[in-house]
Amino acid sequence: MIPPLDEAAMERAAARQAVLTKPAGSLGVLEELSVRIAGMTGRLDPPLERAVVFVLAADHGVAAEGVSAYPSDVTAQMVANFLRGGAAINVLARAVGARVVVADLGVATDVDAHPDLRAMKVRRGTASITRGPAMSVEEAGLAIDMGRELVRSEAPDIAITGDMGIGNTTASAALICALSGLDAADVAGRGTGVDDAGLERKLRAVREALRVNRDAIARGPLETLAAVGGVEIAGLAGVILEAASSRKPVIIDGFIAGAAALVAAAMAPEVTGYLIASHRSHERGHGLVLERLGLRPLLDLDLRLGEGTGGALALPLVRASVRLLNEMATFADAGVSGPAEPAP
Amino acid sequence: MIPPLDEAAMERAAARQAVLTKPAGSLGVLEELSVRIAGMTGRLDPPLERAVVFVLAADHGVAAEGVSAYPSDVTAQMVANFLRGGAAINVLARAVGARVVVADLGVATDVDAHPDLRAMKVRRGTASITRGPAMSVEEAGLAIDMGRELVRSEAPDIAITGDMGIGNTTASAALICALSGLDAADVAGRGTGVDDAGLERKLRAVREALRVNRDAIARGPLETLAAVGGVEIAGLAGVILEAASSRKPVIIDGFIAGAAALVAAAMAPEVTGYLIASHRSHERGHGLVLERLGLRPLLDLDLRLGEGTGGALALPLVRASVRLLNEMATFADAGVSGPAEPAP
Repeated sequence: MIPPLDEAAMERAAARQAVLTKPAGSLGVLEELSVRIAGMTGRLDPPLERAVVFVLAADHGVAAEGVSAYPSDVTAQMVANFLRGGAAINVLARAVGARVVVADLGVATDVDAHPDLRAMKVRRGTASITRGPAMSVEEAGLAIDMGRELVRSEAPDIAITGDMGIGNTTASAALICALSGLDAADVAGRGTGVDDAGLERKLRAVREALRVNRDAIARGPLETLAAVGGVEIAGLAGVILEAASSRKPVIIDGFIAGAAALVAAAMAPEVTGYLIASHRSHERGHGLVLERLGLRPLLDLDLRLGEGTGGALALPLVRASVRLLNEMATFADAGVSGPAEPAP
Repeated sequence: MIPPLDEAAMERAAARQAVLTKPAGSLGVLEELSVRIAGMTGRLDPPLERAVVFVLAADHGVAAEGVSAYPSDVTAQMVANFLRGGAAINVLARAVGARVVVADLGVATDVDAHPDLRAMKVRRGTASITRGPAMSVEEAGLAIDMGRELVRSEAPDIAITGDMGIGNTTASAALICALSGLDAADVAGRGTGVDDAGLERKLRAVREALRVNRDAIARGPLETLAAVGGVEIAGLAGVILEAASSRKPVIIDGFIAGAAALVAAAMAPEVTGYLIASHRSHERGHGLVLERLGLRPLLDLDLRLGEGTGGALALPLVRASVRLLNEMATFADAGVSGPAEPAP
């Protein structure tokens, strides 16, 4: 069960924003964010030190159909890069003070054991969504449970979603279309950078996946996730559901996280109250996903990398919003005059 | 003299971006930013630890004409708030690791001495721009020199502009119109939050200032600054010119900084190469100013506070862009495959 937002805490936060030494509303989106976080956590000054980026990795059968600019091998190679600390998300997590947790939920090949790797393989990659379901409903449920278990064991103050999976913008596009009714042409983009022919293949793959799996899609969000999703996407839905259940804010990264958030919201609509959209991805359709979720992104930097990079970049803004609410002086404390009477 | 950007360093930075373990271009604006900073500083890994927010304070004669929601007293009161560490910029500077330098360039009243206050009063507030020049050309030149001196004495790795001055969105709007040819109705906004009648007075004040001072405006940017600007705006133009002269990046905050940047760019067009636009302000016309400067803002959060708050919030993004360029593994180092051959 996901608890409702704490309305009383939100009112206290909004009342405090109104007496801090600044024109009311002049901190814009950051004021609203501090109020929302008070609603999520039930307090004006929640700890946000322990930030964890959950980078979930898995492969996608559909990648064999020429929908990505990179070969599937890159998923496992990037997992190794994460564990050595050389990927963009490692650099950003160090820069902002966040921990990176890498989990193998469904990489197609064996991944060498490593003290920092959470080995949670649900299956070796998915089947191609263009020929039938990506995985069984049981596997999708298990992947969600793995995501939930990661959050329980890491106990973050704030969670950040991250992903790695060659082919996962194709699965995410199919999932977004299936859950939102949006057309494939409005959702599928160039991902890691496919050319026009690759984009055409990707569009065909998404449409074929929706056609082949239409009966499963009609049965509900878990069945839809199993049919056209991915193992890491299911895991991210679990991360989101568990964080919200424990009243922790979740910063969602980009396109893949958007698909996972739509799944989570279809299962438990209250989850959207706990989501913070880090950025609007360059990937086509991401803006529409954020609109469906009712979220305004904090950043718009043409990012399209995944891994949780946009989420990590947004973390300083999220922390800043809470510090402003708590550390700024009030008009009364600082002896600063409020707004003047209207001039003649 | 402002040196040209280092093209060779920019080429080296762009070449390195192309071999880091990510799809080319997938870090969007942050990739371009790291290349620009290499051009400014001549190196791929410039130090950015010593970040200084220059909060320049001054009063404006035009404030007596009902153009602000706050009385002029607030300028001095907020200077005291800055020195006690209770303002938004203090909180943000602590959060991001920046130093706040507060300077009295033209507060109308006496400001008590304080070890952290730079006392550089050029004059006690400006005369109202609706009746003649705000200050003399000599005073404007002196204020620019004060801004330059602040940068020389603080020797920041990266400068951030900040401002405090009740009435300064009115002076900035007049200055922007005078330098850009934009119409007052497209530039003047609600500032700290004036009502419709206040906005109408503000528009009239800007138009009157442009009319009364038209001869001075025709004489050049320094004369224009003296005629319709403000002492802190002149100081910020000096901060920008000195930082660029010493090849340091300058993060410009919002509307007031935009006016100061237009002044600096009118005096030395090469200065724009050293500017990083932190955010698009909620204040009307700021987007147009950034377009004139050829800058894309990093943030768009409906901020309208000033003080350098948007600049401080952008600092983690700026630092992150440089760390990504330097700390990420390359495809070769990490053993990660590059893009596949086009699929059949």
